[in-house]
Amino acid sequence: MHKVETLTYPIETLKSFSSRVFQYFGVDPSDADLAAEVLAAADLRDIESHGVARLHTYFDMLTLGRINPKPEIKIVRETASTAVVDGGNGLGLVVGPKANRIAMEKALSCGSGWVSVCNTNHFGIAGYYVLQALKHDLIGWAMTNSTKLVAPLWGGERRLGTNPIAIAFPGLEEEPIVVDMATTAAAYGKVEMARRKGDPLPEGWAIDAGGQPTTDPEKMVQGGALLPLGSTRERGGHKGYCLATMVDVLCCVLSGANWGPFAPPFALRQEMPERSVGKGIGHFFGALRIDGFIDPDEFKRQIDDYVRTMRATKPAPGTDGPLVPGDPEAAAEKIRAVHGIPLILPVVEELRDISRKTDIPFD
Amino acid sequence: MHKVETLTYPIETLKSFSSRVFQYFGVDPSDADLAAEVLAAADLRDIESHGVARLHTYFDMLTLGRINPKPEIKIVRETASTAVVDGGNGLGLVVGPKANRIAMEKALSCGSGWVSVCNTNHFGIAGYYVLQALKHDLIGWAMTNSTKLVAPLWGGERRLGTNPIAIAFPGLEEEPIVVDMATTAAAYGKVEMARRKGDPLPEGWAIDAGGQPTTDPEKMVQGGALLPLGSTRERGGHKGYCLATMVDVLCCVLSGANWGPFAPPFALRQEMPERSVGKGIGHFFGALRIDGFIDPDEFKRQIDDYVRTMRATKPAPGTDGPLVPGDPEAAAEKIRAVHGIPLILPVVEELRDISRKTDIPFD
Repeated sequence: MHKVETLTYPIETLKSFSSRVFQYFGVDPSDADLAAEVLAAADLRDIESHGVARLHTYFDMLTLGRINPKPEIKIVRETASTAVVDGGNGLGLVVGPKANRIAMEKALSCGSGWVSVCNTNHFGIAGYYVLQALKHDLIGWAMTNSTKLVAPLWGGERRLGTNPIAIAFPGLEEEPIVVDMATTAAAYGKVEMARRKGDPLPEGWAIDAGGQPTTDPEKMVQGGALLPLGSTRERGGHKGYCLATMVDVLCCVLSGANWGPFAPPFALRQEMPERSVGKGIGHFFGALRIDGFIDPDEFKRQIDDYVRTMRATKPAPGTDGPLVPGDPEAAAEKIRAVHGIPLILPVVEELRDISRKTDIPFD
Repeated sequence: MHKVETLTYPIETLKSFSSRVFQYFGVDPSDADLAAEVLAAADLRDIESHGVARLHTYFDMLTLGRINPKPEIKIVRETASTAVVDGGNGLGLVVGPKANRIAMEKALSCGSGWVSVCNTNHFGIAGYYVLQALKHDLIGWAMTNSTKLVAPLWGGERRLGTNPIAIAFPGLEEEPIVVDMATTAAAYGKVEMARRKGDPLPEGWAIDAGGQPTTDPEKMVQGGALLPLGSTRERGGHKGYCLATMVDVLCCVLSGANWGPFAPPFALRQEMPERSVGKGIGHFFGALRIDGFIDPDEFKRQIDDYVRTMRATKPAPGTDGPLVPGDPEAAAEKIRAVHGIPLILPVVEELRDISRKTDIPFD
C-alpha cells in the first residue's frame, strides 16, 4: 500500500469554487451550479477521475474557446418519445442534464423517453444522470462516447472510447441498484495510477503501440490502447467491443456526432482526429416510467428482495460474497458527504492554479 | 481438430418438421410456423445450441404439459410506448415474436416501444428479434433471462442466467451490425463441447461446486457455475455481473417474472428453484424508430462508414484485424441457406426419436 498525501475539502467548497470558475467564463449561474453539481457527484461517489480533478481541463477548453459557455441547446428532431438534441458545443455538464431532463419529460408524458445528443462535450459520470431519473420513479439510462483509447478485439490501435453505460433501479428500503461501467476491462485512471506508482498492469488490460499485449503502463499510455471488457477472444473480448459499438452508435450515429476514432479530444495534449464525421461527441439518455409496466411499490419491493437475495449468495472462497451494483459508490457517498473529499496534491495544485489565474479564492 | 460426424439437412426440412411437431401438440399452425422460423434462424446463423438441437426439450415440456400450446397472450398494462405482456405460459418462440411485434407497433406510432414479458419460456436466439425490427427501419433490442448457471462476481454458486443482450443497426450497402451476446465470459454450449471432447476449459470461464476457479468442464457442469463477462475482479467481472443484473431486472422485475435463482428450469434434468417470485421467465423487447432521430438513409450511410472504418483498423499481430459484430453469423447464414444445416448425430437421433413418437416423418 502506498501512502498518498491528500488534503480534504467539504463538498460545498469544491462545488461553489467549480461554479464560480464556470461563471468566470460567462456560463449562466444556474447552469454553472448544475455543472458543479455533476462534478461533485463524481467526487462524492469516489469516481475521482471525473470530479474536480477534471476542472483544469474544462478551464483550459473554455480558455481556448473550444467549449461554448453560452450554447444554444435545441431539439432538432423529435417524436412523442424520442428526440435529437444539438448541444451547441456547450459543456457536457450542462447539455447532459438538460437532455436528460427532456428524456424524463417525454417518459412522464408517454411512458418512455430517448434522447440522443450531438455537438456536446464530456458529461461527467454517467451515474449522475440515472440517479436523477430515480427521483421521478423512472428507470434512467445514460451513455456517452469519448476520445479514442480502446482497441476493438483483434485491433492493434485505439479506435473507440471507453463508452460507459449506466442504468439504475430503485428499491423501497434498500439502496438503489446502480450500474455505471465503462465497457473496458479496466479504467484508464487505473493505468495512470499504476504508471505513477511504477506498478505493472494486470494481464488483459492493455496493448502497446505495436498491438502486443503489455503489462507496462507506460507502453499503454504512449500510443498503446486499452482492451475491451473480456480482454481476449477466449474470455469474450468481442463482447466488450460489441458493447462499446452499441454505445457509440446510440450516442453518435443516431445524433450526428463524431463516433469511434473521430471523437474530438477532451484534453489539450490529445491528438486531433484525422477527419470529422459529425458534431462534437455524443450522449444517449433514456427514461422508462416504472408505472408504465408495474405498480412502483411492487417493483421496489422486488428490488429489495433482489438485493437481499444477491447478498445472501454463498461467498466464493476468500471473499465476503457478492456486492450489489452501486454498493461501493453509495458507501463512499455516505462518508464523503460528511467528512469531505480527499484530493491528492497534484489536483489541489491545479485548483490553486485556476484560482491564481481567475482571482477566485480557493482555500 | 476433432472430426465430428454430421448429417446435413435443408433448412426447409428442419423448419417444416419443427412446425409439425409443435402442431402435434395443438399449437395453432401459424404460431407453429413462427416458432419453427425462430429455431431455424438459430441454425442458419450457426448458433446451433439454440436451434433444432433444442426441439426435443420443447417436445418434452409440451408432452409433460409444462408449456401451454394454446396460451392466451395478453397486454396487462400499457402506456403509449410501453407494455407488460403476460405470455400465458406459452412457447417463448411464439410469445417472443408477438411481444416483439407490440414493441415495434408502439415504436411506429410514437417513436419507441418497450415491452417486458412475464409468464413465458425460452425464446430462442435474441438476435432473431432484432433482425425483425430492421425490416421496419427500427433499431431493435431483445433480452431474456434464463435458468441459473452463472455466479455473480465473488459468489460461489449459480444465481443468474446467461442473460443475453441483442441490438441491431442497419447499413445501406453493408450488412447490419448485429450484437447478440450472453453476459458471461463463455457460452455454456462451449463448456459442454469441451466436456464431450475431454478438453480443459480456458481459465476465467468457470468455478466448481466449492466456488473455486476450475478448468475442468465436468466440475462446472456438476454443480459449478459460469463466470460473468470479465471473469475476475481485476479484469472487470463485476461489469458482466452488472449487465446480467440489468437484463434480469428489465425482463423480470419489470414484468413480474421469476428473476435470478428463481427462474424455472428449461430442461427436465434441472433442479426446481427453492421458491417462486413471479410467473415463468421474462423477456424485454425494445424498438426505436430511426427517423425519430435522424434521416434513415443518413444513418445507414454512417453505419456503412462505421463498418468500413472498423474493418480498416490496424490488425493486432497474428490476427486479420477486427470483425464487425454479426459478421460470423451473417457469413454462416449465407452458406447454410444454400448448403443446408449440418447436425451432429446425437441431435439427429433426438429428431428421429420425436419422429417415432409422433409419427411425423423425418428423413
